[in-house]
Amino acid sequence: MRLKHIKGSKEYIEKSSYLILNPETNKGKWQDFFGNFNPIHIEIGMGRGDFIIGMAQNHPELNYIGIEMYDSVIYKAVKKLESLDRTLPNLFLIRMDATEICNVFDREISRIYLNFSDPWPKAKHEKRRLTSKQFLERYDNIFKDSKEIFQKTDNDDLFEFSIESLTNYGYSLKNVSHDLYSEMIPDNVATEYETKFVKEGTKINRLEAYK
Amino acid sequence: MRLKHIKGSKEYIEKSSYLILNPETNKGKWQDFFGNFNPIHIEIGMGRGDFIIGMAQNHPELNYIGIEMYDSVIYKAVKKLESLDRTLPNLFLIRMDATEICNVFDREISRIYLNFSDPWPKAKHEKRRLTSKQFLERYDNIFKDSKEIFQKTDNDDLFEFSIESLTNYGYSLKNVSHDLYSEMIPDNVATEYETKFVKEGTKINRLEAYK
Repeated sequence: MRLKHIKGSKEYIEKSSYLILNPETNKGKWQDFFGNFNPIHIEIGMGRGDFIIGMAQNHPELNYIGIEMYDSVIYKAVKKLESLDRTLPNLFLIRMDATEICNVFDREISRIYLNFSDPWPKAKHEKRRLTSKQFLERYDNIFKDSKEIFQKTDNDDLFEFSIESLTNYGYSLKNVSHDLYSEMIPDNVATEYETKFVKEGTKINRLEAYK
Repeated sequence: MRLKHIKGSKEYIEKSSYLILNPETNKGKWQDFFGNFNPIHIEIGMGRGDFIIGMAQNHPELNYIGIEMYDSVIYKAVKKLESLDRTLPNLFLIRMDATEICNVFDREISRIYLNFSDPWPKAKHEKRRLTSKQFLERYDNIFKDSKEIFQKTDNDDLFEFSIESLTNYGYSLKNVSHDLYSEMIPDNVATEYETKFVKEGTKINRLEAYK
């Protein structure tokens, strides 16, 4: 997700206790960091954080980490978190490029959420897609035991690519939908993109991949 | 698959030892019928039989049953079988409508193939699609223990429907492809439709569903 640059956002978010400034120092020790044995779920490309903040509120029994690259986007998430009635003890944010994920986690993640990721439509950019073989190999290093990837996207080509890439890599798909809002979805938390898309009548694809 | 009526086809195929005239009498006893304990795979809507004949030739360690509704289509399959150098002991044909499948099999099938099935595009005909909830319920009665449905189709809408319907019903998908011939497919046997479509450059979708 790209936003126009917000002046002072870098300095602002670095003062927030939600942002982990040197996440690589916690590699292999995230359980200690959270101070409990609850499963850790991450969202790669959390954007303004609507989804992961909602999930962290709904699931105090789970730990969440939101990953995002841009200061100005993280700024929006931090602002939202600061507007809450109470501090969320089970959610933290990391500013990094997704390609660096193996430097930060070591076999300690239980689920990865990929919501409305950049589709990188050109063939030569295939490896940048978050469900490319290259990323699935990275995820192998950060997943604890069983692997779970949950994806939502409005981009049909990315979704088609993901279905093939995931099943070719040995993932099994469950609960696939090409029109998420045509059904009842009891536990769905919308991202900010999703809310906008649904208003516009754009269909949302969703899948769960297990390995 | 529909073909123009071939005069005398009904009489002709009924004389063939490949066609099982009263299949319901074998219900629950197909293992005895084949005289071995090999898994039984069926193809619903075998058309002219290119696929299932090829599979039966490639896999003498498995039993095959091809199901088709139309005499004139079965006629083509019988003619092809009669042109072979030797009789195939592991392949038989049944003439019936797929809705009658539960009258013929009782928890004895290991895999169902659905190749280029009628897409039934109108919403009101959804239940006629061979991957509809109604058909998946029927299949529950004929599968032995683990369930395997392998589908190929050129119809993107039917494929999308199948992916959703199967995963909503609890199936896990593996090896999904939206363009089968873009990859190496070591064990693929083409149907007559498939051969035609590939020549025309039409993309073939394929999936494996397990439960």
